[in-house]
Amino acid sequence: LPADLAAIVGPEHVVTDPDLRRSSETDWTGQFRGSALAVVRPATTHEVSAVLQCCQRTGTRVVPQGGNTGLVGGSVPDDSGTAIVLSTARLREISAVERLSGQVTAGAGVTLQTLQDHVRASGFDVAVDFAARGSATIGGMVATNAGGVHVLRYGTTRRQIVGIEAVLADGSVLSHLSGVEKDNTGYDLAGLLCGSEGTLGVITRVRLRLVPTPVERVAALLAWPSIESMIDGLARIRASTTLDAAEYMVRRGLELVMSTFDRSDPFRRPHAAYLLIETSAGADPSGAEGMDDVAVAQSEEQRAALWALRELHTEALAAVGPPRKYDVSVPLDRLAAFLEEVVTMIEQHDGLTCHHFGHLGDGNVHLNVLGDRDETPEILRLVADCGGSISAEHGIGRLKRPWLHLSRTPAELAAFRAIKRALDPGGIMNPGVVFEP
Amino acid sequence: LPADLAAIVGPEHVVTDPDLRRSSETDWTGQFRGSALAVVRPATTHEVSAVLQCCQRTGTRVVPQGGNTGLVGGSVPDDSGTAIVLSTARLREISAVERLSGQVTAGAGVTLQTLQDHVRASGFDVAVDFAARGSATIGGMVATNAGGVHVLRYGTTRRQIVGIEAVLADGSVLSHLSGVEKDNTGYDLAGLLCGSEGTLGVITRVRLRLVPTPVERVAALLAWPSIESMIDGLARIRASTTLDAAEYMVRRGLELVMSTFDRSDPFRRPHAAYLLIETSAGADPSGAEGMDDVAVAQSEEQRAALWALRELHTEALAAVGPPRKYDVSVPLDRLAAFLEEVVTMIEQHDGLTCHHFGHLGDGNVHLNVLGDRDETPEILRLVADCGGSISAEHGIGRLKRPWLHLSRTPAELAAFRAIKRALDPGGIMNPGVVFEP
Repeated sequence: LPADLAAIVGPEHVVTDPDLRRSSETDWTGQFRGSALAVVRPATTHEVSAVLQCCQRTGTRVVPQGGNTGLVGGSVPDDSGTAIVLSTARLREISAVERLSGQVTAGAGVTLQTLQDHVRASGFDVAVDFAARGSATIGGMVATNAGGVHVLRYGTTRRQIVGIEAVLADGSVLSHLSGVEKDNTGYDLAGLLCGSEGTLGVITRVRLRLVPTPVERVAALLAWPSIESMIDGLARIRASTTLDAAEYMVRRGLELVMSTFDRSDPFRRPHAAYLLIETSAGADPSGAEGMDDVAVAQSEEQRAALWALRELHTEALAAVGPPRKYDVSVPLDRLAAFLEEVVTMIEQHDGLTCHHFGHLGDGNVHLNVLGDRDETPEILRLVADCGGSISAEHGIGRLKRPWLHLSRTPAELAAFRAIKRALDPGGIMNPGVVFEP
Repeated sequence: LPADLAAIVGPEHVVTDPDLRRSSETDWTGQFRGSALAVVRPATTHEVSAVLQCCQRTGTRVVPQGGNTGLVGGSVPDDSGTAIVLSTARLREISAVERLSGQVTAGAGVTLQTLQDHVRASGFDVAVDFAARGSATIGGMVATNAGGVHVLRYGTTRRQIVGIEAVLADGSVLSHLSGVEKDNTGYDLAGLLCGSEGTLGVITRVRLRLVPTPVERVAALLAWPSIESMIDGLARIRASTTLDAAEYMVRRGLELVMSTFDRSDPFRRPHAAYLLIETSAGADPSGAEGMDDVAVAQSEEQRAALWALRELHTEALAAVGPPRKYDVSVPLDRLAAFLEEVVTMIEQHDGLTCHHFGHLGDGNVHLNVLGDRDETPEILRLVADCGGSISAEHGIGRLKRPWLHLSRTPAELAAFRAIKRALDPGGIMNPGVVFEP
């Protein structure tokens, strides 16, 4: 097989040397380590198609891989050594920004940061942004329906897609990239492939709707007497102001960040909960009802300092950890009760501590549990009982496969399997991800 | 069969009387008239499921029907008299508006207008709006991925959906309505069902993301020396201003409206093209480069007068017509050339006149052809050649089925068929719509 693949992509792009393969066989968390027959790096959609035809013919399983920055083991092979990793790294073409529609077409292997730099030069921006931008690729973002910090304003990646090109397991190329905003000609294949985690095909190119470059933004930290009052206050602020971000943290997390990094408290006295909001200049959130106090950034430096308090949570927890991480979301009307319950449930066990912070507007909570005992099933069950999603970001991958049934009914799982069989009857695409292998 | 169905929904909700059936057997255009075995009106999701199980068992075909306001024959039966019409009219439950998340859950049979009235009482609005709001239902809007006048600002119906409940051909109920914004637990069934035109299942309930009640709006009519300059100008306006609407018309259409309804010209001299924009109060579009002239509405009355010039196009054309209508979209960078070419192509034939107007920001053009000769294949082929969509609104239905291949490749059509077979192996759902019967 490697010889057949080499004939398609060139021998230098079929990596079989174990040392060179390693970084593609291990996921970012280090939790998933597998072994691949080869890492194959096609340069064009045509080559992707030929590689998949070859794999289909030989029954070879295919693990598509972008920046490999996922956290659920969705982009690395199992340890059988029989699957290939199909790297999109060389699918790096970017079109000029189409100024009239505000759209751009990018190859799957383009990193988010490269695309951001490209479109910003034309006065536009990518609607989705997150910390792994330097490595994460457009293909991976689409395959996992990435969220990030601006979901509140613009929605997840799926809502930015106006066209897609992808290769199915049989090598057939789906291509619909002309960039028409209103298009009702059949099923939404782009939306279906988005979030499918490589189980239905390989995404090769994506056409994205861009957003205008943000005008000047104002950041403010709002202090609240309780999580409940904060959630309620956010609803009132959103009714009158368009927010770009609404990130929350609580006293315990803020104290950990302040002590770990020697930062000072922006307020004179402690508060139960803090909401970091960002909005266009001109809006004034300082009158929000029910609030204890507010600190508005008066300079870019102050703005960065407020953001650091939120963003340093991850590092501060890593320093005392490592914590177990749960990226979940819960409907806003049940979020306060959920947070109280989950902390109580976890901390009833000696030695366990639960930190939480996240994107409040989306109900997206980052739970971080410090301590040895693994409470994963209990935590995810509570999320599901509250009507939440066990995966707000990153998808199901291998990590959350055993718990997918908590968020989806048997009828939904049957529909997933029917669609999977329809588009990948041989089951060669990313086996073991989302579904049992 | 009618007796079996009557046992499920009650005899008074299985309509077999030909006179009472008639309105459900004829589409809004009068172009499609069929005959149904019965019109069945279940009141609950459970009843929908039982009806579909009964149809599945007996091989009876099912035509789901909402407000029956579509224009492509997608919601009426063929003339065989063997299919049932499944009316969603009794699925009329609406939840209270969930204030924290700004979401609401509505039964498929709720009309858009009823939902608008309901959510406006809570300070929210539905993102999608269009003229048929009094009859069109939420289920139909989702099944056809309705667009309307605010697509520029908020996107089509698909982008408003946070959860869906639907019944598949085998009676199984997919339900995912908890309203979590960030949710990556498997395939996007809601997005797939949206726009599937009743060919994959019956949508019974939908959870929608609402938008805040609009603040005061300003309407202005901008006059341009050419369509090209108008398209270019719109791109510049959009880079700095958030628009709620951007509707265009040309001199010929404006003149027809003015003479038919005795309206006066808002400008002192004629211009080639006119752009009606609506934006939040405070924005000032009057400085747009390349523009000939501008008329800003100074009162609600003037605003209504500007809108009437655009909205009366349909009536004015009906008065001299009836015209053949084409609701298509074309990428903005090819739109000016397309419009010139399509008018020339149509009007080379004696007796044919082509009017056009539409939603400029989406590249969505309403072509109206007056005269006897049918140029449909030529027009749709030109749309496809320009990378456009042969259906911007309403979907494919029966009307556009022969031309779907113009907008979609054989690989895409094969994927559609595979998905259709996966979810409706017996082929009972809305046969003859989208696919050959």
